[in-house]
Amino acid sequence: MTTARAASELELSPIVAGLWRITEWNLSVQERVRWIEQALELGITSFDHADIYGDYSAEALFGEALHAAPGLRGRMQLVSKCGIRLRSTQRTYRVNHYDTAATYVRTQVEQSLRNLHTEQLELVLIHRPDYLMDAAALAETFATLTREGKVAHWGVSNHSTSQFALLHQHHALATNQLELSPLQMDALDDGTLDQAQQLGLRPMIWSPLAGGRLFSDEDEQAVRVRAEMETVAARLGISLTTLAFAWVLRHPSRPYPITGTRRVEGLREAVAALDVSLDAEDWYAIWTASKGHGVP
Amino acid sequence: MTTARAASELELSPIVAGLWRITEWNLSVQERVRWIEQALELGITSFDHADIYGDYSAEALFGEALHAAPGLRGRMQLVSKCGIRLRSTQRTYRVNHYDTAATYVRTQVEQSLRNLHTEQLELVLIHRPDYLMDAAALAETFATLTREGKVAHWGVSNHSTSQFALLHQHHALATNQLELSPLQMDALDDGTLDQAQQLGLRPMIWSPLAGGRLFSDEDEQAVRVRAEMETVAARLGISLTTLAFAWVLRHPSRPYPITGTRRVEGLREAVAALDVSLDAEDWYAIWTASKGHGVP
Amino acid sequence: MTTARAASELELSPIVAGLWRITEWNLSVQERVRWIEQALELGITSFDHADIYGDYSAEALFGEALHAAPGLRGRMQLVSKCGIRLRSTQRTYRVNHYDTAATYVRTQVEQSLRNLHTEQLELVLIHRPDYLMDAAALAETFATLTREGKVAHWGVSNHSTSQFALLHQHHALATNQLELSPLQMDALDDGTLDQAQQLGLRPMIWSPLAGGRLFSDEDEQAVRVRAEMETVAARLGISLTTLAFAWVLRHPSRPYPITGTRRVEGLREAVAALDVSLDAEDWYAIWTASKGHGVP
Repeated sequence: MTTARAASELELSPIVAGLWRITEWNLSVQERVRWIEQALELGITSFDHADIYGDYSAEALFGEALHAAPGLRGRMQLVSKCGIRLRSTQRTYRVNHYDTAATYVRTQVEQSLRNLHTEQLELVLIHRPDYLMDAAALAETFATLTREGKVAHWGVSNHSTSQFALLHQHHALATNQLELSPLQMDALDDGTLDQAQQLGLRPMIWSPLAGGRLFSDEDEQAVRVRAEMETVAARLGISLTTLAFAWVLRHPSRPYPITGTRRVEGLREAVAALDVSLDAEDWYAIWTASKGHGVP
Repeated sequence: MTTARAASELELSPIVAGLWRITEWNLSVQERVRWIEQALELGITSFDHADIYGDYSAEALFGEALHAAPGLRGRMQLVSKCGIRLRSTQRTYRVNHYDTAATYVRTQVEQSLRNLHTEQLELVLIHRPDYLMDAAALAETFATLTREGKVAHWGVSNHSTSQFALLHQHHALATNQLELSPLQMDALDDGTLDQAQQLGLRPMIWSPLAGGRLFSDEDEQAVRVRAEMETVAARLGISLTTLAFAWVLRHPSRPYPITGTRRVEGLREAVAALDVSLDAEDWYAIWTASKGHGVP
Repeated sequence: MTTARAASELELSPIVAGLWRITEWNLSVQERVRWIEQALELGITSFDHADIYGDYSAEALFGEALHAAPGLRGRMQLVSKCGIRLRSTQRTYRVNHYDTAATYVRTQVEQSLRNLHTEQLELVLIHRPDYLMDAAALAETFATLTREGKVAHWGVSNHSTSQFALLHQHHALATNQLELSPLQMDALDDGTLDQAQQLGLRPMIWSPLAGGRLFSDEDEQAVRVRAEMETVAARLGISLTTLAFAWVLRHPSRPYPITGTRRVEGLREAVAALDVSLDAEDWYAIWTASKGHGVP
């Protein structure tokens, strides 16, 4: 069983589906069940959530589908995140802020479990690096919730190498979920992907399509990148989306890219990237277009 | 006895008094004795010096008071720094520069001992990272001066993570004294505070009031921060100074902030921060005001 | 014999000669032999190459000299680099890019061996950090080529600390070849030189004269640095070139600076730096001129 195996070593599907926009999809429960089934049929068995997505309401929409079709849960891995206190109508904070105190992490994890109608999450990430994180205390929270069977693995998202190292020293983290795309390449140079490789941990990658900007932005960088990618995609006979996922997947850290699309065709385009062998020249041609200059 | 305990593990008072401006205070010896007594009565038992403060004359002013009231020394921890060759009337260097060679460190430490009328300094810091530092040789200097009983602990100030790691590999350092304030937050992101936590070392913090700019600067950042802090301070019924210290103390590295004030009321306001429980929302509201944008 | 000793521990001559411009020197084979002999007589026994220098033709020019005067090879250490696919007339890549796959590294190393008429290279460096590097696979390539006797030591060039650490974890690297000069001081602050010292590895330094810009550039920084260096050089009775090498050599990482000159007098000026004791004040005066402000 996936959950049992995950307890020893985290394994996600090579493409992960992200649900941060599910509230905008306006799907009925049955449509959501169907969408999940189609994802599973494509081999997308890992689903990436966060407590705050859709103004704290996204998880529950997904959970309704799991409740309506109980057979689905056993075929998937559920990932969620917590640690952000986001202003919303019910939460009138003065400013958005982070909170990694035991109480809040526990509250949010248990809420995610209820939302998703499940007993356990395969993976929970601290969404953003909290300057006020007490690493030892947070590790204790991790250990307790793991002991209670509520969370199988823990990780972080958007953490620098030193932030990661600090928490990893107290509790073995499974991943760092980072942004990487043909339009956003900071992770190539800031050491986070090097660190992941050094630790043998596969990063998750958010926004491999730069949140859609890859297709729509008209700034110089996007125009350059799109032109280069269209040339490569045409030669390889694949879509721009497939190429973007192939570009991310080409990284030696063996990343898990997340697709945020509702369209089943979009999922299919992401999965198609698993069959693309992008050569170094094409990879660097896209890098070059993104930077606006050649490699040194 | 404090000194004996310090030999095994460095312990400073939760608020440290900094003497870098003592030469501007124009206090008689008896007034200095009285000032020290008042600090001690407030629980401020650690005093932060540097060889170069007050154009190399600050330590001696403090030392005169210790000489006049010999009972004081046993109730305090003395911290000093060396490693900068600062131009002055007696020192006509072409440029300010650093020197961490054995001869210079020894000379300056022994001068600090004489200035402060003491046999031992609880802690000596290398004031700035010296690009020409020979880490192995400097560690040998540390070890020799420790063996001679002249210095109990060694540390550094303003060192990057890699500079710290290099010297720490050769001699166990006790602290990195860093700048942190509501107006200067680089240490939150450059890894130095993460490193301190990973090593279990409590950082010292200089200029928690941004050298007074927090109260007086009229630039956009300072105006924003002051407005936010005045709101929080009013709600908590504390002064702006107390809030600034509470903001620094809230960091999980358990920092030792340094107050540089002559005013006993100022010392009291710093110490009052030890009783303030700043919540994460207020802490991040100040962060947000300082950055001019919310957390990501 | 040098080669045998190098197999256990890499040792280069304190000044290294770089051949990246040899194709511009227009020397006959006998002139190249004479140039090498003069370098050796000056104690410059290490020669720095790369597969791509001179549009992939530099190594062969040097190799012709070794072939013509077979006694030379045993008196020197050969360094080369690979990993860049540079566009050229024979190589019509769409963009310059990197390639650290086993096939390409092997092909280039074996080509370097043929070009240089030698059985073994004392040191081969990965020329630039390849984002697509598979560290474990590359380490395996290193091990295989070492086992075959083709390369004694491996290193990298221009790698960040995390890039270095990743590969070093898989195969012990001998050096990181970095840029450092009075006009380019990034390596002082980016951690690479700290890392080298922490690992006890001596860095190689390229462009200690900033590629000649030190003498010719008219921008503000170069003018300031030249003025300061001329003052120091005049006082010490040395040339600007000697001073630049002395400035680099003063760094505690014990760097191996590379001279790229054809002129024997230029080699002599570089070697003369080994007898210069630059004091910290002069070193920092040059730093100050380069930065345009004093040390903090």
